[in-house]
Amino acid sequence: MSTVLVIGAGGVGSVAVHKMAMNPDVFSQITLASRRRSKCDAIAASVKQRTGVDVRTAELDADDVAATTALIEEVKPGLVVNLALPYQDLAIMDACLKAGANYLDTANYEPRDEAKFEYSWQWAYQDRFKDAGLMAVLGCGFDPGATSVFATYVRKHLLDRIDTLDILDCNGGDHGHPFATNFNPEINLREVTAPSRHWENGQWVEGPALAHKQAFDFAEVGVRNMYLMYHEELESLAKFYPEIKRIRFWMTFGDSYLKHLEVLGNVGMTRIDPVKFQGVEIIPLQFLKALLPEPSTLGAVTRGKTNIGVIATGQKDGAQKTVYVYNVCDHEEAYAETGNQAVSYTTGVPAMIGASLMLTGAWKGAGVFNMEQLDPDPFMALMNSQGLPWKVETLAAPLAF
Amino acid sequence: MSTVLVIGAGGVGSVAVHKMAMNPDVFSQITLASRRRSKCDAIAASVKQRTGVDVRTAELDADDVAATTALIEEVKPGLVVNLALPYQDLAIMDACLKAGANYLDTANYEPRDEAKFEYSWQWAYQDRFKDAGLMAVLGCGFDPGATSVFATYVRKHLLDRIDTLDILDCNGGDHGHPFATNFNPEINLREVTAPSRHWENGQWVEGPALAHKQAFDFAEVGVRNMYLMYHEELESLAKFYPEIKRIRFWMTFGDSYLKHLEVLGNVGMTRIDPVKFQGVEIIPLQFLKALLPEPSTLGAVTRGKTNIGVIATGQKDGAQKTVYVYNVCDHEEAYAETGNQAVSYTTGVPAMIGASLMLTGAWKGAGVFNMEQLDPDPFMALMNSQGLPWKVETLAAPLAF
Repeated sequence: MSTVLVIGAGGVGSVAVHKMAMNPDVFSQITLASRRRSKCDAIAASVKQRTGVDVRTAELDADDVAATTALIEEVKPGLVVNLALPYQDLAIMDACLKAGANYLDTANYEPRDEAKFEYSWQWAYQDRFKDAGLMAVLGCGFDPGATSVFATYVRKHLLDRIDTLDILDCNGGDHGHPFATNFNPEINLREVTAPSRHWENGQWVEGPALAHKQAFDFAEVGVRNMYLMYHEELESLAKFYPEIKRIRFWMTFGDSYLKHLEVLGNVGMTRIDPVKFQGVEIIPLQFLKALLPEPSTLGAVTRGKTNIGVIATGQKDGAQKTVYVYNVCDHEEAYAETGNQAVSYTTGVPAMIGASLMLTGAWKGAGVFNMEQLDPDPFMALMNSQGLPWKVETLAAPLAF
Repeated sequence: MSTVLVIGAGGVGSVAVHKMAMNPDVFSQITLASRRRSKCDAIAASVKQRTGVDVRTAELDADDVAATTALIEEVKPGLVVNLALPYQDLAIMDACLKAGANYLDTANYEPRDEAKFEYSWQWAYQDRFKDAGLMAVLGCGFDPGATSVFATYVRKHLLDRIDTLDILDCNGGDHGHPFATNFNPEINLREVTAPSRHWENGQWVEGPALAHKQAFDFAEVGVRNMYLMYHEELESLAKFYPEIKRIRFWMTFGDSYLKHLEVLGNVGMTRIDPVKFQGVEIIPLQFLKALLPEPSTLGAVTRGKTNIGVIATGQKDGAQKTVYVYNVCDHEEAYAETGNQAVSYTTGVPAMIGASLMLTGAWKGAGVFNMEQLDPDPFMALMNSQGLPWKVETLAAPLAF
């Protein structure tokens, strides 16, 4: 019987807490904390209605290390699951060290004032977690998260050596709005407008944002254009799999989405520096966010499926082989189960799975861990039983481009 | 020797005052008034440098009828030329009536809070101007203005009867920005997003904004897509030429401009209702305006030409005939002459010409007049000598669509 403290009451937090409540044998007591307690209470009410489980709630400013430490000391959880903003990762890790709690998150730290994604800040906590005998698991969502588990599973069971690895993230959902972002628009837009970067022959290769695309026929979705991007699991995959010659990340975007993004960039609406207007400082991207549909309202109206997976080409028993491991998730089914659509669901369920493996001791250790360092088998088994079933296909040829 | 009071120190006001100063035989004393006197002083400095003529300046809130009346009584002009915002037409007309001054403007009155363009508000001043023995000339820019003069010239000299009339407004200029508007962006966007409307067989036919387009090969510009729109001279043309079966207005827009407009509309950035943001009320379109390049900065960087004219099909000596009257204006030449590009130039010069005809008595009368009611010949002659030369072509066929 284990106690968990979840920080963050957005869509991902909501999914994770719902799924934890559906697994009371592992998660015997759940506390949900967030800057706005009313959001926690709304999730708790939904969980109570759907599962009968009581979730405790608390108000917490996760930037405040002392307050987070105090809450951890009060709750005494077996694990702190950080589903707050990526800006807050380090503050929550600091609080875990002070209070002596294990830690898990789904997205690596990034500074508030620059679009910079890298693990260095969190890897720097290695010795402190190790010395404290505590475990921190980083990037345990879908991508990053399940995608690295897929790669690790491929390396363990399907290929003797991986030569190239491509991560394919397709959201085939349609919310009916001309333009809206599926999660926090500010983070969404910062990610998409960043230069592309992939790993090739031992080094990073950079390119302009969204300049390289190819069409791919996604199972249960159809043909979509996918674009080369940077995504944070590339860094940990490159670190833990030096044998892989090329690692890339692709995400699908519709023409209309890209058109909106281009125009909003052109007129300055994606700027994150303040503009003086009528005597006040306005950050254009935040004002845009205020005009767009609230991401949490999209769940109820989104139709279609996501398809996220990895294609690995390498050697098996002396021959070249290409395997494709992927999950398909239906927006409407995810919404029916947890009140959140597939983009939140595919991140929140892996967070719950990782938390479950840490609490049950299937995953254990002292220090800071990436997904590539952990046994993929129990994670893959729980994906199948907890709503994210996966398939393995052998492809006739590597990815076209 | 005549005194003129010009109200409004934007691009059009700047052009008009420069051109007045170049015609000192007609405009012996020029006063320029505006809400921000510094803008008037900057124009006066440019006029002094280019022509040696001294322009007097004054600060004036043209919404304040008493203040405008007082300024008119102080300046005692032969004519008040209103080049301020269309919102302010009625207030300035009221002041002219109170102070006993003739009046000329270039754009019809529109309320601040709705996108509604019609002459009714100003035509309602007919009796008051008539009774006072004063003359008000409405819509004396290029379109409205010169386009109605072209139609009147066609009717007087080239065709015995006009059956169809199309006004074609092409701005082939390129300012090098991904998106910017050539004059006040708020008015620009309100005009473009309004439903299309044209006159056909005695009634108005409405359609969605920008839904009907055709390509046309504009002299000295090239082939451009032009879109059916509503424009205010359609109302006066329909009123004064009941014989014309169909009257339409077309304006060219590039694909990129329309893409930006569509996206900005989709995300709510063209809204003119206030949005509560960080405790203050923000009108999205005004915030957008603050992000876009200041229209006055575009002149120095705009290359290319405008081509504005009318195509009239009708009867001449018993046979069908199509004539095309148009002016081509070069952005760089306009800027070199007055410090303003062609969009301001083509409006400001006709305003100066109309003012000249009123001050010299070539145009006279008591009441409110539209351009269709006035002799086109002296206006057409001055266009040729004052920087807006025009051509007449006989076309082999009417406009394609």
